[in-house]
Amino acid sequence: MPIITENITREKKTETDFQSPEVWTKVTGKAVYGNDFKLPGMLYGKILRSPHPHARIKKINLGSVEAMPGVYASLTGAELPERPYGIVFDDELPLAAELVRYIGDEVAAVAAVDNETASKAVEAINVDYEMLPAVFSPREALKPDAPQLHEKFKDNLAWERNLLRGDSDKAFREADVIVENTFTIPSVHSTYLEPTVCVAADDPYNGLIIHTAVQSPDAVRVIIAKALELPLSKVRIVGPVMGGGFGGRVYGNLKLYMIASLLAIKTGRPVKMQLTREEEFLVGRPMIAAEMHLKMGFKNDGTILAREADIVTDNGAYSAQAPWVSKTLSERNDSVYHIPNIKTRVRLAYTNKVPTGQYRAYGNQAANFATESLLDMGAVKLGIDPLKLRLKNCVKTGDTTVHGLKIKSCALAECLKAAAEEIGWYDRKKGYGYGISAAIHASGSLVFDKNFRGAAALARLELDGRISIFSGEQDYGQGAHATFTLIASRVLGISPEMITVYSRDTLSSPHSIGALGNRQTTIGGKAVQMAAKRLRELIVLTAADMLEDPVVMEKGTLRSASDRIVELPLVAYHYHSLTCGLSLIGEGRYVPEPSEYDETGYGNIAVTYSFAAHGAVVEVDKTTGAITVHKIVAAHDSGKIINQISAIGQVFGGTTQGLGMSCYEGYLFNKGEVANASLADYRIPTSLDVPDITPIFIENEDPEGPYGAKGLGEIVQIPVLGAVANAVADAAGVRVTDLPITAEKVYQALSGWECE
Amino acid sequence: MPIITENITREKKTETDFQSPEVWTKVTGKAVYGNDFKLPGMLYGKILRSPHPHARIKKINLGSVEAMPGVYASLTGAELPERPYGIVFDDELPLAAELVRYIGDEVAAVAAVDNETASKAVEAINVDYEMLPAVFSPREALKPDAPQLHEKFKDNLAWERNLLRGDSDKAFREADVIVENTFTIPSVHSTYLEPTVCVAADDPYNGLIIHTAVQSPDAVRVIIAKALELPLSKVRIVGPVMGGGFGGRVYGNLKLYMIASLLAIKTGRPVKMQLTREEEFLVGRPMIAAEMHLKMGFKNDGTILAREADIVTDNGAYSAQAPWVSKTLSERNDSVYHIPNIKTRVRLAYTNKVPTGQYRAYGNQAANFATESLLDMGAVKLGIDPLKLRLKNCVKTGDTTVHGLKIKSCALAECLKAAAEEIGWYDRKKGYGYGISAAIHASGSLVFDKNFRGAAALARLELDGRISIFSGEQDYGQGAHATFTLIASRVLGISPEMITVYSRDTLSSPHSIGALGNRQTTIGGKAVQMAAKRLRELIVLTAADMLEDPVVMEKGTLRSASDRIVELPLVAYHYHSLTCGLSLIGEGRYVPEPSEYDETGYGNIAVTYSFAAHGAVVEVDKTTGAITVHKIVAAHDSGKIINQISAIGQVFGGTTQGLGMSCYEGYLFNKGEVANASLADYRIPTSLDVPDITPIFIENEDPEGPYGAKGLGEIVQIPVLGAVANAVADAAGVRVTDLPITAEKVYQALSGWECE
Repeated sequence: MPIITENITREKKTETDFQSPEVWTKVTGKAVYGNDFKLPGMLYGKILRSPHPHARIKKINLGSVEAMPGVYASLTGAELPERPYGIVFDDELPLAAELVRYIGDEVAAVAAVDNETASKAVEAINVDYEMLPAVFSPREALKPDAPQLHEKFKDNLAWERNLLRGDSDKAFREADVIVENTFTIPSVHSTYLEPTVCVAADDPYNGLIIHTAVQSPDAVRVIIAKALELPLSKVRIVGPVMGGGFGGRVYGNLKLYMIASLLAIKTGRPVKMQLTREEEFLVGRPMIAAEMHLKMGFKNDGTILAREADIVTDNGAYSAQAPWVSKTLSERNDSVYHIPNIKTRVRLAYTNKVPTGQYRAYGNQAANFATESLLDMGAVKLGIDPLKLRLKNCVKTGDTTVHGLKIKSCALAECLKAAAEEIGWYDRKKGYGYGISAAIHASGSLVFDKNFRGAAALARLELDGRISIFSGEQDYGQGAHATFTLIASRVLGISPEMITVYSRDTLSSPHSIGALGNRQTTIGGKAVQMAAKRLRELIVLTAADMLEDPVVMEKGTLRSASDRIVELPLVAYHYHSLTCGLSLIGEGRYVPEPSEYDETGYGNIAVTYSFAAHGAVVEVDKTTGAITVHKIVAAHDSGKIINQISAIGQVFGGTTQGLGMSCYEGYLFNKGEVANASLADYRIPTSLDVPDITPIFIENEDPEGPYGAKGLGEIVQIPVLGAVANAVADAAGVRVTDLPITAEKVYQALSGWECE
Repeated sequence: MPIITENITREKKTETDFQSPEVWTKVTGKAVYGNDFKLPGMLYGKILRSPHPHARIKKINLGSVEAMPGVYASLTGAELPERPYGIVFDDELPLAAELVRYIGDEVAAVAAVDNETASKAVEAINVDYEMLPAVFSPREALKPDAPQLHEKFKDNLAWERNLLRGDSDKAFREADVIVENTFTIPSVHSTYLEPTVCVAADDPYNGLIIHTAVQSPDAVRVIIAKALELPLSKVRIVGPVMGGGFGGRVYGNLKLYMIASLLAIKTGRPVKMQLTREEEFLVGRPMIAAEMHLKMGFKNDGTILAREADIVTDNGAYSAQAPWVSKTLSERNDSVYHIPNIKTRVRLAYTNKVPTGQYRAYGNQAANFATESLLDMGAVKLGIDPLKLRLKNCVKTGDTTVHGLKIKSCALAECLKAAAEEIGWYDRKKGYGYGISAAIHASGSLVFDKNFRGAAALARLELDGRISIFSGEQDYGQGAHATFTLIASRVLGISPEMITVYSRDTLSSPHSIGALGNRQTTIGGKAVQMAAKRLRELIVLTAADMLEDPVVMEKGTLRSASDRIVELPLVAYHYHSLTCGLSLIGEGRYVPEPSEYDETGYGNIAVTYSFAAHGAVVEVDKTTGAITVHKIVAAHDSGKIINQISAIGQVFGGTTQGLGMSCYEGYLFNKGEVANASLADYRIPTSLDVPDITPIFIENEDPEGPYGAKGLGEIVQIPVLGAVANAVADAAGVRVTDLPITAEKVYQALSGWECE
C-alpha cells in the first residue's frame, strides 16, 4: 500500500492535484453566491419568531401591518392548511398554527420592498401567547409528568431503539475488567460561512423556482412539492455557488424555502429571504446533543468482550434528521473493533429547545469521543498500551462486523501504526500528552431511500471536443466537481482542463439523494466513471463508423488500424450532423448491490467503509488547565486518493472542526434561550488555534469505489475528538468527559472535583 | 379540405387553441426580459459610434477616460486582433480598426458603474478622423469610380448572381404582351418592441455566458466562439423572455454581444449593454432596400412565358444576411406561377449606410410587391381579370417549379378563390379598389447549413407524470412553445397543461439552426413529434415490464391486457429507481431528405412550401391621395393548423406589418444619416391604422409536416404588399411603384407625374 504523508507546506503540485476552475472564482470574489442573486420586482421576507420556549398562540394581531408602506403581504399559520411535513417524521408546519415549541419558532412572516421595511413590519405584529410549561433536559422530558411537546409523541419520546447482539449480560459476567462512564456532548453548529439564503419565484410557466445553495436539492424539491402540494416537476431548485454546508445543509433550511415560496405565491413576486447569523444558530439545525452512558468489558489480555450503552439524545422541538443521527451515533462506532456482544438503548427526546439535526460525521464523532475515552480508561485498568489494545481488537479486510457491515477493504491497523509513529508514540517528549483514536465511517450509505441506492451521471461530448458532466451530486465547497473531473479525465484519457462538471440545476441534472452519507466520491464518482466509460465506447464506435475501421482512443485522438486519425471535435460534429442537433451522451448508472438488513438493522448498509486513526500531541498547563494542542496526525484509509490537494483540504478542515468540538464549541442554553447565538460568543477555532496537522493517506485500494477510492469528507472529523481527549487525559492525568474540554473543566478536574 | 374562416372577434376557444402559460407571465408584467436581468458587480457598457459615413481613424484619444470615476475599462479596435467575422462574409470587426464605413459604426466602448457614467465617458473620447468620399446609392456604388468600402470587394460588389432558366430571349420574342417597370422598396426595420440587450459574464468555470434573447442562440454561439477564439462549449447563451424578433433578430446583435463579452473579459465583471431605440435603427440590420426592374411576357390567353429581372440591393456597410436575402428576393417568387423562362441578375452593393439584413419574409415580400404589381399591369394590357390570370398560371400539388422546388402540397388556387370571394371580388362596391396577390414561401428551409438540415428534440417523463420538452428552437413571441406543446399533447394523448417546453439555454437544449427559414413548426415541431412518439414507446415498454403484460396507453394511463393499470408517475419512478436517477427520455431526430441543388441553385430547398393569397379593399381620396385600407383577407395554405389562436395571431401581426411596408414604413437617409431614427419619425401602423383582417385557413394536409402542418410565420407578411398596391391602383387609377405608397405619392401620380 503506497503511503502519502503530507505536510501543511507543499512545494509542488502532484499529479493528482486539481482544483475546479470554480475555485478561482471564489478566491477572486467573482463567484455568485445566493445573496448576490436578484430578480426584478423582488421582495424581501422576514420572519417573526417565538420569544417563548413553549406557548399557545391565542391571537396574532396583524393590525395595520399589511397597510404599512412597502409591505406587500403577511403570512400566518392560520391561513395555511395544517399539513405537517418533516424529514423523518412529519412533525412541523411552515408556520406555527397553535403552539410554539422553542424560542425561535416561526410564527408569522412578511414580504416587503426591502429588509428594513420587512423587519419593521414583523416587529409591528403583536401576538397574544398563553405560556405553557417547558422542558429543557432530555432526561427530564422523558419523564411521564414532563410538559408534552407533540400529542403524537407520548412522553416526548421522538424515537427509541433497543439493540441486542450476542449476550452482553453473559459477557460482562465473564469479563476480567469492566469500565464505565457517562460522556456528554452539547449541540454544535456547523457554522458554514454563508448564512442560508433563498430567492423563491413562481409563475405559471416556470412553476416554483427556488434559487438556493443546498447539499441535496432533489431531496428538498421532493419535500417542498409534497408540503406545498405542487407537482414535483413544477418545483425547480437552481443553485448558486455554496458557501459551505458540512452536512448541516443537506436539506438547507426547508422552512425558510417554504415561507419564501408561500410569500412569492401570495404576492406574485420573487421573494428573497436570508437568515441572520443569530437566526442560523436558532434554526440552522445544529447537531444533536447527547448523553452517553457506556460500559465496556475486557478479558485480561485486552480482548473486548462487550459494550453496553444507554444514550439519550436531544431532539429539540422538531425532528429533522435527529432520529437517523441518533441511530448512527449509537451503533456505527461498534464496528471499529471486534465487539461480539452489544446492548444499546438510545432514546431521542423532544425538548423546548432549538431543533437539531446533523453535522458532518452524523453523530459518529460524538460516539468516538465517548468510546475512545472509555477504551483508554480500560487500557489504564488493564495495564495495556492503548495503541496495542486498539491493534489487538481492530477490524480488518474480510471481516463482517457485529452489526453486519461487510469490510471489503480496511487498513485501520496501518492507520493506527502510522499515526502513532508520526506523533512519536514510542518516543515521547516529556511534559506532553499523547492520545490516539480510531474510526470507521460508512462510505456511500445505502439506507436513505430503499428504492434509490446509487447514482446516475451523464457525460456529453461537446462540439469543441470538451466534455460536460451532469451529475445530481453537489459541490458545496468540498471539491466534488474537481474529483468528478479527475475521474472522467482518467477514463477518457484527456486533460482535466477539458472537462466541466455541472450539477446545480434540478432541471438539467440527473436526480440524486445528494451530498450526504459520504456518497459523493464513492457513489456519485462511480456513476461519473461509468458515464465517462460509456461515452468513451460511444466515441470509439462513432469514430470507427467515420473511419470505416476499428479505432483506438488515446489522449483524445481516435486512430484507426490503418493509422488514419480523427479528433474529438470532428467525432462530435459527425454525430451532431447525423442526429441534427444531438450530442453523444454516455449514461452512467451505478446501482450498488442492495443492502440487506433485517428489522434489527443487522446488515451491510454502505457500499464500503473508510477507516482512520488520529494521534494528538498536547500540553496542559496544570496551574490553569490551559490546553495547547501541538500536533494532530490524521492517518486515513480512504482507498486510493483521487484528488490529493482536495483530500488534504478535507483533512485540514475536518480536523480543525473536530478540534472545535473537542475544545471550543457548544451551544449554551438559558431556559431554552441560546446564550451564545453569535460567532463572537460561540467560539470556533481560528487560524491561530490550528495546530500542526499532518495528513497520512494509506492508499489501500477499495474493490468497489471508483479507481479504488472511498469517502473521506466525514471521517476526517471523527477520530480527532478521541485523540485529543486521550492526549489531554494523558497530559493532565485527569479526564474530562464532558465536551468541550476547556481549561476550566481541566482545572476543575485537576482540583479534584472530577478525576479518573 | 376543411376551411377555417376567422373574424377578429372570437367568442369561444376552439379545440386547438392553446397558449403557453408563459403568455400569462407576459400580460401580467411578470416575465423577466433581458433588461430586467442583473448580476452582482455588473457594469454597463456604451459604444462610441462614427459620426461620419466614411473616414479613416487617425487617432483615438482616450485621454483620461479610464481615470474617470466609475469607469472600469475602455476598448478600441487597436487592442483587438484584426480577425474579421460575419454571417455570410467575414467583413466586419467588433470595433473599427482603421476605417469607419457608416454613421453609427462602432469605434470604441466603455464599461462603467452605470449607464450615465458610461455615456459621459464615451462622449469624452476624442477621435481624429480623415474624411473619405462616401457613396450612398447602390447603383452609384457599383460604378468603377465610386468610393470603395472594402478592399476585398471590388467595385463595392458584395455579391452577384446571374440566373438563367429556359430561354427568356426567345420567349420574349414570342410573347404577345410584354410589361415592364421598376419597383423600389426602402430599408424597413422589424421594430421589435424590446431593444436588444445582453449581459455578458465570464469566469474560468462557466466560461462566457451571454444572457440575451435571440432567435438562433446556437448560431450566435458558433460565430462568437470563432470570432473571440473561445472553445465553443465555453460560450453559453441563456435566453430571458424575448420581446419580439420578426426575423430581424436571428443573430441578435452580434457586435453588441462581442463588445459586451470583450469588456466582461477585460474587467472581470459582468457587463450589460442595451441599445437605445436610435441605435436599433442604426445597427439593428433592417431589411435590404431594393430596386427591381422587372419585365414579363405573356401569350394573349394569359399564359406567362418569361420574366426578366435586373435587381440591385443595398447592403449598407457590412453584409450580415444580405446576400442570402437578395437571393430569396430575386428568385423565390418565380415559383408562385408557372414561368418557364427566367433571366435574373441580382447585385448586392456596399454603400456607406446602415448595414442591412432581413425581416420576416426574407425579401420575398419585396418581390411580391414588384411581381404582383407587374402582373396586374399585364392583366390590364391583356384585358384579363387579374384573378383569372393568377388562377390560370398558379402552381399546384405535384409541380416542380422553374427553380426545382417540389410542391408536395398546394392549395394556392383555393386560397386565391377564397380571398377573392371574401373581399367581394365579383360583387364590388362602387368607389372602392380591389386588389389580390399570391405568394409561395419555403417552409423548413434546408439551405442554411449543408450538414445540418433538420432538428432534434428531447421529451422527458418527469416523476410527477408531467412531460418536459427540450428543443433548440426558440419561442420569441411567435408561439413555438405552445405549438410544440400541442404536438406533444396529441402524440402522448395527455392534456397540454401537463407539458412544458424548454428551449432557452444552449447548455441543456439540443443544438439547432434556430428560428429562421420557417423551420419552427415544420422542422422543429416534427422533431418534437418524433421525440414524443419515442417517449410514448418507452413509456409503454416500461409499463409492460412493470405489469408483465403488454399495455396500451390512453389519456396518460397504461392498461394491461388483464386490465391492470399504472399511471405515468409510477412509470417514471420505476425507471428512476432502476437507473438511480435517470428519466425516460424520448429522442426525436428529424433528418429531412437532403435538398439536392446544382451550382445554379436548381433544386428542392425546403421540406415543403406554404402558399397564400391576400385580397385588399381600399378607398382613395382622389383629391388628396389619402388611402384608407378597409379590409384585408388573408387566405393561407399552411397545411393543417396546429394551434388556431396562435395562427390567427400570426396573420394579424404579419398582415399589419405588411401593411406598414405597403403604406407607412421606410428608412429616410440624408447623406448616409438616418433621418427618421425614432419611433416618432419612423412611422409604423398603430392600432387605429389596422383594417378589418380576416384570416382564412385552407387546411390542406401536408405529407411531410407534423400532423400535416406547414409554416405560417413568414408568409403572412408577403401577399399584403401586392394586394394593397393593386387595390390602390384599382381605386386611384394610377400605380405607385415606389414603397411605401403614401398619400403624397398617390397625389403626385394622380397629378400626372406618373401614370400607368
